[in-house]
Amino acid sequence: MNTFGTLFRLTSFGESHGIGVGGVIDGMPAGIEIDMDFIQHELDRRRPGQSSIVTPRKENDRVEFFSGIFEGRSTGAPIGFVIYNENQHSSDYDNLRETYRPSHADYTYVSKYGNRDHRGGGRSSARETIARVVTGALAKLALRSLSIEINAFTSQVGDVKLPGEYTQYDISHAESNIVRCPDDETAIRMIELIDEVRSQGDTVGGVITCVVRNVPVGLGDPVFNKLHADLGAAMLGINAVKGFEYGMGFNGVQYRGSQMNDVFTVDGEKVTTLTNHSGGIQGGISNGEDIYFRVAFKPVATILRDIQTVDASGREVTLKAKGRHDPCVLPRAVPIVESMAAMVVLDHYLLNKTKHL
Amino acid sequence: MNTFGTLFRLTSFGESHGIGVGGVIDGMPAGIEIDMDFIQHELDRRRPGQSSIVTPRKENDRVEFFSGIFEGRSTGAPIGFVIYNENQHSSDYDNLRETYRPSHADYTYVSKYGNRDHRGGGRSSARETIARVVTGALAKLALRSLSIEINAFTSQVGDVKLPGEYTQYDISHAESNIVRCPDDETAIRMIELIDEVRSQGDTVGGVITCVVRNVPVGLGDPVFNKLHADLGAAMLGINAVKGFEYGMGFNGVQYRGSQMNDVFTVDGEKVTTLTNHSGGIQGGISNGEDIYFRVAFKPVATILRDIQTVDASGREVTLKAKGRHDPCVLPRAVPIVESMAAMVVLDHYLLNKTKHL
Amino acid sequence: MNTFGTLFRLTSFGESHGIGVGGVIDGMPAGIEIDMDFIQHELDRRRPGQSSIVTPRKENDRVEFFSGIFEGRSTGAPIGFVIYNENQHSSDYDNLRETYRPSHADYTYVSKYGNRDHRGGGRSSARETIARVVTGALAKLALRSLSIEINAFTSQVGDVKLPGEYTQYDISHAESNIVRCPDDETAIRMIELIDEVRSQGDTVGGVITCVVRNVPVGLGDPVFNKLHADLGAAMLGINAVKGFEYGMGFNGVQYRGSQMNDVFTVDGEKVTTLTNHSGGIQGGISNGEDIYFRVAFKPVATILRDIQTVDASGREVTLKAKGRHDPCVLPRAVPIVESMAAMVVLDHYLLNKTKHL
Amino acid sequence: MNTFGTLFRLTSFGESHGIGVGGVIDGMPAGIEIDMDFIQHELDRRRPGQSSIVTPRKENDRVEFFSGIFEGRSTGAPIGFVIYNENQHSSDYDNLRETYRPSHADYTYVSKYGNRDHRGGGRSSARETIARVVTGALAKLALRSLSIEINAFTSQVGDVKLPGEYTQYDISHAESNIVRCPDDETAIRMIELIDEVRSQGDTVGGVITCVVRNVPVGLGDPVFNKLHADLGAAMLGINAVKGFEYGMGFNGVQYRGSQMNDVFTVDGEKVTTLTNHSGGIQGGISNGEDIYFRVAFKPVATILRDIQTVDASGREVTLKAKGRHDPCVLPRAVPIVESMAAMVVLDHYLLNKTKHL
Repeated sequence: MNTFGTLFRLTSFGESHGIGVGGVIDGMPAGIEIDMDFIQHELDRRRPGQSSIVTPRKENDRVEFFSGIFEGRSTGAPIGFVIYNENQHSSDYDNLRETYRPSHADYTYVSKYGNRDHRGGGRSSARETIARVVTGALAKLALRSLSIEINAFTSQVGDVKLPGEYTQYDISHAESNIVRCPDDETAIRMIELIDEVRSQGDTVGGVITCVVRNVPVGLGDPVFNKLHADLGAAMLGINAVKGFEYGMGFNGVQYRGSQMNDVFTVDGEKVTTLTNHSGGIQGGISNGEDIYFRVAFKPVATILRDIQTVDASGREVTLKAKGRHDPCVLPRAVPIVESMAAMVVLDHYLLNKTKHL
Repeated sequence: MNTFGTLFRLTSFGESHGIGVGGVIDGMPAGIEIDMDFIQHELDRRRPGQSSIVTPRKENDRVEFFSGIFEGRSTGAPIGFVIYNENQHSSDYDNLRETYRPSHADYTYVSKYGNRDHRGGGRSSARETIARVVTGALAKLALRSLSIEINAFTSQVGDVKLPGEYTQYDISHAESNIVRCPDDETAIRMIELIDEVRSQGDTVGGVITCVVRNVPVGLGDPVFNKLHADLGAAMLGINAVKGFEYGMGFNGVQYRGSQMNDVFTVDGEKVTTLTNHSGGIQGGISNGEDIYFRVAFKPVATILRDIQTVDASGREVTLKAKGRHDPCVLPRAVPIVESMAAMVVLDHYLLNKTKHL
Repeated sequence: MNTFGTLFRLTSFGESHGIGVGGVIDGMPAGIEIDMDFIQHELDRRRPGQSSIVTPRKENDRVEFFSGIFEGRSTGAPIGFVIYNENQHSSDYDNLRETYRPSHADYTYVSKYGNRDHRGGGRSSARETIARVVTGALAKLALRSLSIEINAFTSQVGDVKLPGEYTQYDISHAESNIVRCPDDETAIRMIELIDEVRSQGDTVGGVITCVVRNVPVGLGDPVFNKLHADLGAAMLGINAVKGFEYGMGFNGVQYRGSQMNDVFTVDGEKVTTLTNHSGGIQGGISNGEDIYFRVAFKPVATILRDIQTVDASGREVTLKAKGRHDPCVLPRAVPIVESMAAMVVLDHYLLNKTKHL
Repeated sequence: MNTFGTLFRLTSFGESHGIGVGGVIDGMPAGIEIDMDFIQHELDRRRPGQSSIVTPRKENDRVEFFSGIFEGRSTGAPIGFVIYNENQHSSDYDNLRETYRPSHADYTYVSKYGNRDHRGGGRSSARETIARVVTGALAKLALRSLSIEINAFTSQVGDVKLPGEYTQYDISHAESNIVRCPDDETAIRMIELIDEVRSQGDTVGGVITCVVRNVPVGLGDPVFNKLHADLGAAMLGINAVKGFEYGMGFNGVQYRGSQMNDVFTVDGEKVTTLTNHSGGIQGGISNGEDIYFRVAFKPVATILRDIQTVDASGREVTLKAKGRHDPCVLPRAVPIVESMAAMVVLDHYLLNKTKHL
């Protein structure tokens, strides 16, 4: 279905080439100050055309709120909103009416629903994520009043990796360059790679790392709704994501328990750990340390090259290169990752309030 | 909460040292033949004491069904069940009453709930997964009648990896050795490593790969409940899991779109792809190819060594090595991975029936 | 929360005096023809100003769809929509900023949320029901293709009751008069009563009866989601509703089982019942007979008289009569009752498809 | 599905003639003292054979808890439980294998699921309600610590009604007679009527009234999950219920708004109302006054008379009178009504905690 979350939840709607994309945010706690500039700022971080390494499509992406906000604060009522679509070059897609693009959702989508809006990805278009960024911005405003901070950044593009651990960097610095990497030198190499790939009409993947700080101890459930399971589901629900890991992740499998266990210590009154291989979550529940996780994005499927494929009648056809595209989605995906994380953390914060009378 | 799934769902209960572990399976389609031997066989695959490389605890793990089955078939009513706990060495845990074990859920759990069953992991114990294996067995019986097959195997233990691609192996062969790896030579090296680790009182992690075959085209939703997002949430909900990837996964991020796109072709009447980097899912929806994914398990936290930690009063204490443990959870986790996958696939099969009148 | 339904569901948003009211309809089966004239016709049946016995407010109530419809058919994607608010006499409400109107939601609402949009009922305004009528119209379009018909009518206003059983009347005739009663003579008496009440600045309650025909056998669950329990929840969720009964209802309690049991008989191939005291539902599941139920509406609280009440500081104050109001909500509530019924029946139709593989 | 509730919820299982009936209670707040005697006392109030006016079946109805309780308190983990079935006279039902009993769920059930446990009502048996009484008892224990009290009583049997308003009576006195009516004189007449009906092998219906006291202001949602809508769904989910009304109910429809509005006043610091036609709920949200509602029970279908019906092949057959039955379910339904009400109120209490950060 099209709803994400349990107590704080987004029900989203909209296709890339319909009237607009939007949703209903339900469960926003009452009384939160709504900073409209901040919301627009978040949308701008996701917006096409923001830099030389993303798709040159021009969209203003201004959100219209219908409800749930009164005199500058959330009322506790559901927040309906829409972002109108504009600048649709639908004719770009005319040749796609009967054709299945490789590694897109065209074939699976038409098989499932028996119809297809050939003018774009329809519901599987990444334009839908704009509704998540609006919702994530609201969640961040609520979390901000709890001092919980969420920051993501690009830690890998192709084979260019940010060296070392995230703790070595000032993450907020990531916003100072167009690829959103906290290390300037690595950022330059990432940008060069994206430029090269774009000039070849190709695309490249990468990894986004996200860090959540100041999460209170106790968020998450011990069994199915482990905090990291809900974070994982959130991330895997983002277009082009192929993997999720937190804490020691895949790399940790080769070590011994004795090497990976996080020894407890006491810092004043506070129980803390000497290391954080657990990634801030133990037994599915936050332990107060930094939560950090990594999200793998594939090189997106839309390339500007002639490609061989089949059409709805099963004939082999050649698709001519055409249109505008993102050579690498990572820079624009950073705020989406943060938004989904904010939604999950706020939801669990609210859920956790109900464990005691 | 303690419910997993939308239309086919398990609500589980039970702690490791309480009376028993069980659940209610709701949404089991009516009329499915219930093969009790198969269910027991699945439980046996997860059972402690089954081989020399798992914990020597002895548990019979026989399930008692209360409802929902009549004259050998599912009735469509909810299926209540319990597996009684036995062989509880609760005194093994007496020294834990006030102590937080490193990288266990002790500290987070008591912080969240204000209480703790010190006799074991309580709700965060891996014993809870027995309810999932029962449910998974029932899901498999339903899927079997649709010819959908689910097979998992151990593809890595510590730094010992199964070479090459899964397609090179006869996966069913994995059940012929105690580590559940389809390649005998690799299996021997894995077993040697586990033996070594155990003799050191230590633990080691690894990776389980799972393959789902004959899934019809069309399962999964395009946005939040992408088939791989629900599979990911299922896997990340298993104890000790730190990562999930499907198709090209993390490794794919370094390639170009032109290298990773799966070119369509037509095989008779059937649309198929020449490669399967997508992992059988495109835009969140199954495309009829093999679905495959990898799950990372950390080295579990319980080690048989004296360890330094803190207790509930914040004092530093030493925990003496004691009890029985699994040096490597992978062999016993294989049926758990399959079970969760079966639950997700059956759920989406049912959901997909409702997309048209 | 603000979502109604399980597989076919509406998440609604909007306040009476905000920008607009709307929602997201999720789970609409793909491929249903969307008759826009029919949807507008349904909105017109609910619209203020439609006749001399309802509030004279003028609203056009035109729905704008954002998504989920392509080339005249539902696509299976969520359908976002809004109806903009207009003709807001907010100044009518200025004197209410600090005052609790008797039997309105003012006091409870501000106590719950800590804020209040004094310009109208906020979220508790009956204007929210416009989102339900849009959704109900779509549900009706889906049900129409299954030959399922839903018709409601006014069966009582104050002490003026439609005599006898609904089966004596041609229900469709109800749409031929402004009070929506299938018997013209009774309709005239109802209208006279409403005129009298209005001239006194007062309001009056009544009963709406709803009949659902051609429901297939098997819709509904045996335990919690009995078909009538979900219908009841739907009706009790409509503003001003104080009671729900189906089949023999409250009146049946005084009879004996031997008088009320519906004897089965066989009509050709079809099992049917000689009487229908059960109201078309047995054990929570439809039996193929007419489903009928009755919904009690209180006289609404807004009266045009000076009234004594208290304000937020606990002072007693007098509210001066002002504004426009409905002397009797029944005529406009008829399409709302039908809409909620249509949503429930379609939801259960879809759920029922998942009881077998 | 077989789950009731949002944050505090019961997932129930079990048929009348299977192994047992039970469930999983999820969302029980941690730290609540579990009074086992009280739980058994509640089961005894529902138990067959408790008096001369209910079915003489003998069942001990002792609950076995599997989990979620440790050292006398709820832990916050799910509470699994079962009540084993006993004293099953399955042979009583042998003649029913192929026959549809009038106004039972036999026909609808077999049409829906394609199978039927002819030995009793299967899932539609009222024995399932035992799981609700266990859950309700736990909810009451939680509510007791909040000083919220729930009491139901029999207010009508056949045409014998308790005169006047509930406020004239000491409700707790209802437990002093076997029909559970707070007025002894009326109780005697009710018992006489039930005796008469039983001697005729017949059954009779009635009304249960329930009063909830000391509910804090603010429980319930303004739109779909109005407090009374959830109470109504809960009551309509009880076997044999045909109607629900709260506050002024059906009777209120004939009055004017000016007569039914509840005028606010101030009692010390507290806002209160002079009358309570609203039934303690305004705009779907509790206002701190008594919540009261009425539930209509039909005369149950099982009568001890030869009856004419049809079998699965469509032949007309005669069912011979046989077995044991309840001539009137009201006395045993009183604790069921209270239990469902307790579940709803506790659920909304928890939900309400999440409206603010």
